[in-house]
Amino acid sequence: MSGITAAERRAMARARELALQGPRSTNPQVGAVILATDGRTLAEGFHRGTGSPHAEVDALSRLAAGEATGATAVVTLEPCNHTGRTGPCALALIDAGIGRVVYGASDPGDESSHGATRLREAGVEVDRLDVPEADALIADWLFVQHTGRPRVTVKWAQSLDGRAAAADGTSQWITGPEARAHVHRERSAHDAIAVGTGTVLADDPKLTARIEGVDDAPQPIPVVFGDRVVPEAAALRRHPRQLRTAGHDLERELTALAADGIQSLYVEGGPTLASAFIRAGLADRLTVYIAPTLLGGPRTAIDALGVDTIDEQRRLTVTRLDQLGRDLLVEATTEGEH
Amino acid sequence: MSGITAAERRAMARARELALQGPRSTNPQVGAVILATDGRTLAEGFHRGTGSPHAEVDALSRLAAGEATGATAVVTLEPCNHTGRTGPCALALIDAGIGRVVYGASDPGDESSHGATRLREAGVEVDRLDVPEADALIADWLFVQHTGRPRVTVKWAQSLDGRAAAADGTSQWITGPEARAHVHRERSAHDAIAVGTGTVLADDPKLTARIEGVDDAPQPIPVVFGDRVVPEAAALRRHPRQLRTAGHDLERELTALAADGIQSLYVEGGPTLASAFIRAGLADRLTVYIAPTLLGGPRTAIDALGVDTIDEQRRLTVTRLDQLGRDLLVEATTEGEH
Repeated sequence: MSGITAAERRAMARARELALQGPRSTNPQVGAVILATDGRTLAEGFHRGTGSPHAEVDALSRLAAGEATGATAVVTLEPCNHTGRTGPCALALIDAGIGRVVYGASDPGDESSHGATRLREAGVEVDRLDVPEADALIADWLFVQHTGRPRVTVKWAQSLDGRAAAADGTSQWITGPEARAHVHRERSAHDAIAVGTGTVLADDPKLTARIEGVDDAPQPIPVVFGDRVVPEAAALRRHPRQLRTAGHDLERELTALAADGIQSLYVEGGPTLASAFIRAGLADRLTVYIAPTLLGGPRTAIDALGVDTIDEQRRLTVTRLDQLGRDLLVEATTEGEH
Repeated sequence: MSGITAAERRAMARARELALQGPRSTNPQVGAVILATDGRTLAEGFHRGTGSPHAEVDALSRLAAGEATGATAVVTLEPCNHTGRTGPCALALIDAGIGRVVYGASDPGDESSHGATRLREAGVEVDRLDVPEADALIADWLFVQHTGRPRVTVKWAQSLDGRAAAADGTSQWITGPEARAHVHRERSAHDAIAVGTGTVLADDPKLTARIEGVDDAPQPIPVVFGDRVVPEAAALRRHPRQLRTAGHDLERELTALAADGIQSLYVEGGPTLASAFIRAGLADRLTVYIAPTLLGGPRTAIDALGVDTIDEQRRLTVTRLDQLGRDLLVEATTEGEH
């Protein structure tokens, strides 16, 4: 295996930036940079969504015939080797005379789809630059490939004793500014955000991602679950993304979201919706903000989960434990099939 | 201020060990070591409980007349200057011809009770060796002086969503061995342990402190709160300490415990008793073990707390956040008057 140059490392970081310019869709986000042998950038490209050219082809398309001969392609994902709506990228690279390919994440498809082998067989030098950022780019997309639905994060805030509100329903600001800022970053990191009609009617949430110092934070698509109608005056109707509505069949609704390119869903609440996702085994990741306070009383943050006896408990694996200001953050994954 | 010698530091550590040999009572635990000018130990003493001599006097009593002349007394607590059931220790030290006194914690009583001043006025050299262990020795005793009741720790184990058990009441082993070992160390660190009759009847707990590798762990006095009778066959009746029973007036019961020299109380549960202590504002410290699991349903670890609206929430200060095996430990203090 030959060494990766500093120019190639820089190009990989740039390719990741390019990838993020493409939309989240039913295809993965991919970015590509073509480098001359002296390390100069010849062309850049990224995947602009289902049906449009893959990142490598997008980059190559910016070059004149012959210009890519002997050049290096740096791509966040292993070039594909299958013919779908577009031809195999491995072939396009070979045809363009590319001399070397550096890729980030491995193509997780079946063996025959691996472009690296085909490239090597054609005499192209191939190296993998193993960077976690490249794997992270396609993680949710991979999840959709395996499960047919978006990856679901269920979030809630509670008192130490597991309540979402006082007996009369008041709950404003049980968590502090650091926890709330973290919620906004989480919103922005998801493709869509789910809320029940009960919460819409009770709290009239905006569900936008407002991040201090960031004017163009990506905004999740708001999805309202439930039967009741979202009022015309609801703040959600002024959300920058088009509101979606969804019914009670969570699995079917998730399948529909995945078909529209939504790879990750952030379930904001309230308790009824959060509990429904957990009860259905559709919560992959939990983020729980625990305020240092006790409330007692009937308004639990999580309702019935169908755990009749202790053997049916929903075991978790804690992946992060932190203090955010005065609050605690517990992140956990569920021990499902995934 | 003159320097503290290495022999004096060693003597302070030894004095603390001696102090712990005395009982927890309505007086503080105090230990004393008398050192010759060459650093040799002349005598040791400790306070053996209300009505018996203070530690300094106990140590001096082991010496012949004149033997303490010019010697150094190392004491965990500033020698007293008041006449109670025994005479002032400061005077006893002066009369014995002690040339130097090194003490740990300051006497927190009113100014006139401070022995250090009286010792200095009599020409005795006085130094304070500020070690946290010396303050810790008298912390609970001080708490009793200020409040008239023991310091109360309320402990419970819960799922992440605040449940103590599944819907049918089963809860065995929701926390793991590390958390359970921690509970046993906590039991041993308290003078008494409180449990409701409901828990006695449902679980038949032993309430002993069982610490691996320690055969003679101090055992807390078991105190059963409630109306129902503890069955003759209950494991609690075989506890190494004599069982006490208590009624519903928590303040009155705590006052009675303090009068019997109980400086700290560990409230083990169940939910009814834990909630009663919190509701009454009598929980000074909380230790909450959170198992990485969700249970949902009706069996909350904490019941109603009388928090009707959010302004009445019981705010906490988190003092420790840790992982014990797979479980989380949250330690907190309540924001009461203390």
